Amino acid sequence: MPRLVPSSLALACAFAAAAALAAAPTRIPEDAVRTAITLRDRALHDDTAWNLTESLTTEIGPRLAGSDNDLRAREWAIAKFKALGFDKVYTEPVTFPKWVRRSEHAAIVAPFPQPLAVTALGYSPATPAGGLTGEVVLFPTLDALKAAGDAVRGKIVYVGFRMQPHRDGHDYGIGSTIRTHGPALAAKLGAAAFLLRSAGTDSNRTPHTGVTQWEADGPRIPAAALSAPDADLLERMAARGKPVQLKLDLDCGMDGTYTSANVIGEITGSKHPEQVVAIGGHLDSWDPGTGAIDDAAGVAIAMAAGHLIGELPKRPDRTIRVIAFANEEQGLWGGRAYAEAHAKDVARHQLGSESDFGAGKVWRMSASVKPEARDAIRQIADVLAPLGVAYDAQRPGGGGSDLSQMHAKGMAALSLTQDGTRYFDWHHTSNDTLDKIDRDELDQNVAVYAAFAYMAAQAKGDFGSAPGAFAHDGAED
Amino acid sequence: MPRLVPSSLALACAFAAAAALAAAPTRIPEDAVRTAITLRDRALHDDTAWNLTESLTTEIGPRLAGSDNDLRAREWAIAKFKALGFDKVYTEPVTFPKWVRRSEHAAIVAPFPQPLAVTALGYSPATPAGGLTGEVVLFPTLDALKAAGDAVRGKIVYVGFRMQPHRDGHDYGIGSTIRTHGPALAAKLGAAAFLLRSAGTDSNRTPHTGVTQWEADGPRIPAAALSAPDADLLERMAARGKPVQLKLDLDCGMDGTYTSANVIGEITGSKHPEQVVAIGGHLDSWDPGTGAIDDAAGVAIAMAAGHLIGELPKRPDRTIRVIAFANEEQGLWGGRAYAEAHAKDVARHQLGSESDFGAGKVWRMSASVKPEARDAIRQIADVLAPLGVAYDAQRPGGGGSDLSQMHAKGMAALSLTQDGTRYFDWHHTSNDTLDKIDRDELDQNVAVYAAFAYMAAQAKGDFGSAPGAFAHDGAED
Repeated sequence: MPRLVPSSLALACAFAAAAALAAAPTRIPEDAVRTAITLRDRALHDDTAWNLTESLTTEIGPRLAGSDNDLRAREWAIAKFKALGFDKVYTEPVTFPKWVRRSEHAAIVAPFPQPLAVTALGYSPATPAGGLTGEVVLFPTLDALKAAGDAVRGKIVYVGFRMQPHRDGHDYGIGSTIRTHGPALAAKLGAAAFLLRSAGTDSNRTPHTGVTQWEADGPRIPAAALSAPDADLLERMAARGKPVQLKLDLDCGMDGTYTSANVIGEITGSKHPEQVVAIGGHLDSWDPGTGAIDDAAGVAIAMAAGHLIGELPKRPDRTIRVIAFANEEQGLWGGRAYAEAHAKDVARHQLGSESDFGAGKVWRMSASVKPEARDAIRQIADVLAPLGVAYDAQRPGGGGSDLSQMHAKGMAALSLTQDGTRYFDWHHTSNDTLDKIDRDELDQNVAVYAAFAYMAAQAKGDFGSAPGAFAHDGAED
Repeated sequence: MPRLVPSSLALACAFAAAAALAAAPTRIPEDAVRTAITLRDRALHDDTAWNLTESLTTEIGPRLAGSDNDLRAREWAIAKFKALGFDKVYTEPVTFPKWVRRSEHAAIVAPFPQPLAVTALGYSPATPAGGLTGEVVLFPTLDALKAAGDAVRGKIVYVGFRMQPHRDGHDYGIGSTIRTHGPALAAKLGAAAFLLRSAGTDSNRTPHTGVTQWEADGPRIPAAALSAPDADLLERMAARGKPVQLKLDLDCGMDGTYTSANVIGEITGSKHPEQVVAIGGHLDSWDPGTGAIDDAAGVAIAMAAGHLIGELPKRPDRTIRVIAFANEEQGLWGGRAYAEAHAKDVARHQLGSESDFGAGKVWRMSASVKPEARDAIRQIADVLAPLGVAYDAQRPGGGGSDLSQMHAKGMAALSLTQDGTRYFDWHHTSNDTLDKIDRDELDQNVAVYAAFAYMAAQAKGDFGSAPGAFAHDGAED
């Protein structure tokens, strides 16, 4: 320690006092930590999340945004929030263009006729009635497609990137970019249609759907994904050097606008009811499966965590807000509507994190919070550590898919990263069903969410939410 | 050794001489063993089987018996036999009733509407146009269905046995019995339709088809399989205690008769051309997949083994006959036609074994041969042992699926049992595609078949084939 002369000592004291006034460190009281530990351990033996996931996948099933089941799912969520003792249950409207899938077929016509397992991408237009036949041109990457330029005019473009499984699922960054941007690029180059190798890590005949994006006034072409074995087949045929003719027959497209809703349940805070810890998942799903891992599990984890906090003898200091978001799948519609509706409330959002990466165990926590809240985050990390959650103090936290939109407006946020090693085997396919969920892993998630949400609700001090905060933290969610 | 008095010694010698005359032990000459070892080791680094499997699945694909691809596959097999240097290539007719699949849909109508992944069973009739709706009654076993008796009248019967994976696939005995006999039983009890949990070990939305059997003059009802996750869903709904209404819409049925053919290629024996070692697989497949493991692999293994023997500097003593059987899937039609056509030639079939259990490694060999050929079988076993093949001298050998019919007539036969741990994940589903085959495991099979077939062809003596032999050996294939 450097020796301080009296005058500099006085100066240092004055600085310290000013700093303390400006930003006292956020702290979670010891009794709140003890209660969080109790909550955490109780969650590991609680069947609420499993029962919710079982119920949503069994009694509703596929929940394509804008479909009949969109409404049924909302009614389900409202009823469940009420049955689970939430103090306040309400909805907030979410309006979006409605896309419908009616039928989808594809087949190689020449040189060797074979049927293909295919699924249309969300926002794909239909092919002409009776289908569209063309020669396929194959590319390994979007860059290669870009370089091809005019050579794809009138052809069916195929891009064949092979995702590998990783715990953090990072190959999906590449796979989903091909899916979201490839069709618009191919359309601009004059292609007749776009196909990709599914953005998935499995080898099942279960193609992976997902949304694609168009420029507002740009051209649009039919776009679909082949299952991995079908992509293999197409590539093997093409490798023989003869032109491959493929027929694509998609009946799907836009159908006006639809107003759904985010369904919200709250455990009302006893001291600061207007301040909320925001957790959630998304209620919609793609239609080939029953939306078990994506994202009945997320909704169930958040609902169960809120419910367990609500079962405590006393209401927490701040409100626990559980949000079942509408239409995440087609472009974070629910998350964007929420962020817009609550833009002025950013500072009242104590901390937020959404679960939307299946039901694998949470293995990493990171946070975007103000520096003075790092010790409180460390306190949360210490409670989560026995669950196998490692705290990465260097990474930002993004809040998850829909809540990323509130984080973008300045909400302090965690990332509670789940093990996604197998997630992309089933994601957006007919295989997204209840049997893919391990109950113990699901419960670990509930333990994480219940403990963190409760501690954030009881914290002495905030985590730095403010309009415009964290604008440059580079969060990835 | 007991001491022998002169008289008993003389007696013993007389007995031995008589036994030698009656049945000299079959033996494989040392030079043939050495050549078999060379063949075995060469097969492990030969790409013939892989190339054949790749070609059949890529250039033909699904090969439903009686379909257009039935003919294409035969043309493929003839061309490949010729290209691989077989001395003689010919076909033998196989006539059977033709069954066609046009479309198949199912959905739960109440209490919670959900679509179901379903596939019609072979020989199922269609539902009435527009589908059939009824209440589902669930049973865990066929015995439980039997016991229900009249209670199923007018209902849709569901039997939900859960197969577990095993190396020898023995749960398929139960699963396939439900599939083959359940529909006829339910029909006799007056049921409107029959469903089963797929006879499979996976948890994919890829239902397992397969043939069912009717009594000649018995009633027939629509019959189909649900994928495992769909069976789970149905069972979960039923567990809620409310009646489950299901709609089944199958467009499929019989369509006259069709004449296909077994395609046969021979490496002609130099000393005993009329005596044959019979190996093979079946050329047909079910239609949802491309028939890679069932049974492009088997055809490829046998063809490659024959080819490697044909590549030797000298033709073997006896003929290697490779048979690509027609329509195994719908009831061993090709195998039965072969056995009928060759009934008089049983004694000329030195030894036989068919490959029809995927492409997993052979891990066990057993044989049905005359006692005097056991030492020769042991010689074969010694050559196969380094490949990881254990000889079980206590078990009979059945010859495999189609060749079981020749064995039933008295042909000496091996069982070369493959590792089927994952076979029933993909068997009879859309997932039966090339990517499920491991090249090294496929090559191990070729090594087994090439070595055994060559040694059998060179044996001094026979293996006991004779009309009516082995009638009571209890072979399981």
